[in-house]
Amino acid sequence: MAHFNSSDKPMDFDRGFVIDFDLKTGLSKTLETGKRYLGQMNGMFADQDAYDEKMKEGDPLIYEFHSMPVPETDGDLAFGCSIVNPGKVGDEYYFTKGHFHTILETGEIYYCLKGHGYMMMENPEGDWLALELTAGKAVYVPKRYAHRSINVSAHEQLITFFVFRADAGHDYGTIETKGYRKLLVEQDGKPVIIDNPNWK
Amino acid sequence: MAHFNSSDKPMDFDRGFVIDFDLKTGLSKTLETGKRYLGQMNGMFADQDAYDEKMKEGDPLIYEFHSMPVPETDGDLAFGCSIVNPGKVGDEYYFTKGHFHTILETGEIYYCLKGHGYMMMENPEGDWLALELTAGKAVYVPKRYAHRSINVSAHEQLITFFVFRADAGHDYGTIETKGYRKLLVEQDGKPVIIDNPNWK
Repeated sequence: MAHFNSSDKPMDFDRGFVIDFDLKTGLSKTLETGKRYLGQMNGMFADQDAYDEKMKEGDPLIYEFHSMPVPETDGDLAFGCSIVNPGKVGDEYYFTKGHFHTILETGEIYYCLKGHGYMMMENPEGDWLALELTAGKAVYVPKRYAHRSINVSAHEQLITFFVFRADAGHDYGTIETKGYRKLLVEQDGKPVIIDNPNWK
Repeated sequence: MAHFNSSDKPMDFDRGFVIDFDLKTGLSKTLETGKRYLGQMNGMFADQDAYDEKMKEGDPLIYEFHSMPVPETDGDLAFGCSIVNPGKVGDEYYFTKGHFHTILETGEIYYCLKGHGYMMMENPEGDWLALELTAGKAVYVPKRYAHRSINVSAHEQLITFFVFRADAGHDYGTIETKGYRKLLVEQDGKPVIIDNPNWK
């Protein structure tokens, strides 16, 4: 690239920088993704027998995402892509673990570049909603809502570009322990919402 | 769209919502763009004769952008697309007015969906840089840097998806009064940086 007077540091958060995120794949030549395999999500899918069965066949990659070394201040922004593979455990679609922000009063933007999925959200008071995403749709995740991306396509990855306040932090523990109140499962070839039988 | 338990309010910043931004055009069926015509940018291009000449032929649309009715808190995020048309005033490429954030210590993300351009940035101490953007490149605009999008393509729009802290605010006045220290102009068919002869 022909930048003018740019920094010679990669990802210079003080002076600015450009980074690539392929619009078709979500991947970057500059920044590796973190990867979440099924084996790292034990207990998170409702059908444990289906989980055990699937693990016997291997340990599939469920999703990947960029984690940027941004200074964790309230004036900086973290960003990158999230890529959820297609697939199911039993009748439950592949999803990201999902998280609250540690600073609960911060929102997040996800802009869908490719695929078909849902953003499942719920707040500590029990309000929940699941919003449908396709390419060219952006979802506003409000303050106080845990959020999880779910891929409902049989074939295609769900790729989103996300931005959040760099100091927001991730609280994964609450969701890992309690689960979500609602699940998105396939019935008669279509995504439907059911109560989570394991919700604590 | 088949949302589950979604709000019946459009753009519900309390419970979340989905909004469309076409990946090819940057436009939304839900939210009109604000529009900046050349007549609203008098004095901002270096070549005033070329400006006057161009205004005689009409008043071309230079750029448009989404301005979202988001609550201006430090936990919310504003987002949308910016669309800069191709063209020049004299040898100076079309650009957005550019602005500092009123809360100077807040950054911004621009993710380029289409086109070819530059993000011109400078801070109050006089440091400046101009970073090249093409489709699939994201630019990190750091805290304290004024920023302006410049379209260097002869034919194509420059389309970016942007996100910033909803309370950041826009200070256009400083740039309108002082200008940028540097200009991006075309010489021998290529973009080059020159000193702004009108910089105060």
